[in-house]
Amino acid sequence: MSGNCGRDYTRRIYYYETDNMGIVHHSNYIRIMEEARMDFMRNLGYEYTAMEAQGIIMPVTGVSAQYLRPLHFDDIVHVRTKLTSFNGVRAAFSYEIFRQGEDRPSAVGESGHCFLDTATRVPVNLKKRYPEFYERAMEIQEKSK
Amino acid sequence: MSGNCGRDYTRRIYYYETDNMGIVHHSNYIRIMEEARMDFMRNLGYEYTAMEAQGIIMPVTGVSAQYLRPLHFDDIVHVRTKLTSFNGVRAAFSYEIFRQGEDRPSAVGESGHCFLDTATRVPVNLKKRYPEFYERAMEIQEKSK
Amino acid sequence: MSGNCGRDYTRRIYYYETDNMGIVHHSNYIRIMEEARMDFMRNLGYEYTAMEAQGIIMPVTGVSAQYLRPLHFDDIVHVRTKLTSFNGVRAAFSYEIFRQGEDRPSAVGESGHCFLDTATRVPVNLKKRYPEFYERAMEIQEKSK
Amino acid sequence: MSGNCGRDYTRRIYYYETDNMGIVHHSNYIRIMEEARMDFMRNLGYEYTAMEAQGIIMPVTGVSAQYLRPLHFDDIVHVRTKLTSFNGVRAAFSYEIFRQGEDRPSAVGESGHCFLDTATRVPVNLKKRYPEFYERAMEIQEKSK
Repeated sequence: MSGNCGRDYTRRIYYYETDNMGIVHHSNYIRIMEEARMDFMRNLGYEYTAMEAQGIIMPVTGVSAQYLRPLHFDDIVHVRTKLTSFNGVRAAFSYEIFRQGEDRPSAVGESGHCFLDTATRVPVNLKKRYPEFYERAMEIQEKSK
Repeated sequence: MSGNCGRDYTRRIYYYETDNMGIVHHSNYIRIMEEARMDFMRNLGYEYTAMEAQGIIMPVTGVSAQYLRPLHFDDIVHVRTKLTSFNGVRAAFSYEIFRQGEDRPSAVGESGHCFLDTATRVPVNLKKRYPEFYERAMEIQEKSK
Repeated sequence: MSGNCGRDYTRRIYYYETDNMGIVHHSNYIRIMEEARMDFMRNLGYEYTAMEAQGIIMPVTGVSAQYLRPLHFDDIVHVRTKLTSFNGVRAAFSYEIFRQGEDRPSAVGESGHCFLDTATRVPVNLKKRYPEFYERAMEIQEKSK
Repeated sequence: MSGNCGRDYTRRIYYYETDNMGIVHHSNYIRIMEEARMDFMRNLGYEYTAMEAQGIIMPVTGVSAQYLRPLHFDDIVHVRTKLTSFNGVRAAFSYEIFRQGEDRPSAVGESGHCFLDTATRVPVNLKKRYPEFYERAMEIQEKSK
């Protein structure tokens, strides 16, 4: 029923993430989304370092974010990550960033990814190159529907 | 004929913008887009500091980027910025990031913005609050069609 | 006996903190030191947001770091922070950054600070402006000797 | 007479470099120093990419900065870089960051570096590994005395 692996990613906002407007700079949400994605993979049982140890990298092919309500220094944020699509060649995640205690997200975002061989930078299909990850991701992605 | 104010924004990629994959981290393109947007406004004759001096801020309401080909340390990039929509209340920009000497962009992106009173954080209409900017932006946006 | 308030600051290294050398970019240690300092103040019972709510900011007047052994993506780091000097007008902190499971630090650093009135940016003496913080900081600094 | 290779490194302050205090975050000066160092090497005729092409990296072993007067968004800064010591095994640079039109620096800093083989991460002596760089750096360092 849920592709978010049961647990949100949580941390405080750092001072250096704020800007002249007194709010979190919009570029930093993209970074927080990456942190949440790495945490999601760790909870899945396949951390990103394990993927890199297989000689595979997962670069970002696209990213988007909608900023709904500002975040400030020291706010505690929870990120709810979902694997929204996966076919062994490409993957997409969605993110909802909540300020602690709030029901409506402060921001939402998405990211798209491909899988490349680290050395050649040629696309790989995880079904062949990393089947245990493939199976687990297919399973998680099914649940998120 | 062109909404890009006649001149691309150009700079080198910094070492600290690269990551473990040996390429520019995807979050940094969002920052380069901001630099290009500020440069675009400067060329327009209305730099962002002038807007803030009017008690108006222009926060980002949404952002997206598609990463087509990686960038590396010391690459020289040109950013072609356009004001794609503007009505005094909201604005949108598009960006094409080219590696020097290449015809196809390394990345493309978009950003959406609103205008707020700095003190109250209430939306303002530039037609009333900053008419000279409004006129210039309407003119530029027309040209970009 | 110890000025580190009993608890290290701990977190993982993020992917976006690495660079082209495959290690954490040196500028990011300065940011991790800031996170640890904010955490130290929180443990002290006087978080930085409380200080800012008093109309006081604590800018950095100087910083230094020595990089002893590199850190990598996903490393868990512990930061041991001490308040090494404090007189109500100026403060200094020291930091030791350890990779989890290691006895020798990966990096050490220091930061110096003053206290300013937020509105006027004029130096303030916390003994007068924020006596409860002053007392607590004097006490902690004594213990750290 | 001067080790700064005749030309300052100049650029504007970006919006994302500011923080909640309305000034440039202290960690960003460390990054600007890196930009200036890379520019210094380029002017020397030996850009950092050329060094990496030789299989040599120049990591930072230590860094320090003193913040004298704050910088703000859109300020134009000039950085005066000097190679203060060099022996083929280690190098040190100093930096003075000036706000345009000002005689006294806004910040000063220093960085220390070693030279490592990219693959083995073992220290190398440039006198043997990269003699043309060694000669040029010795010459420049002499002039800076």
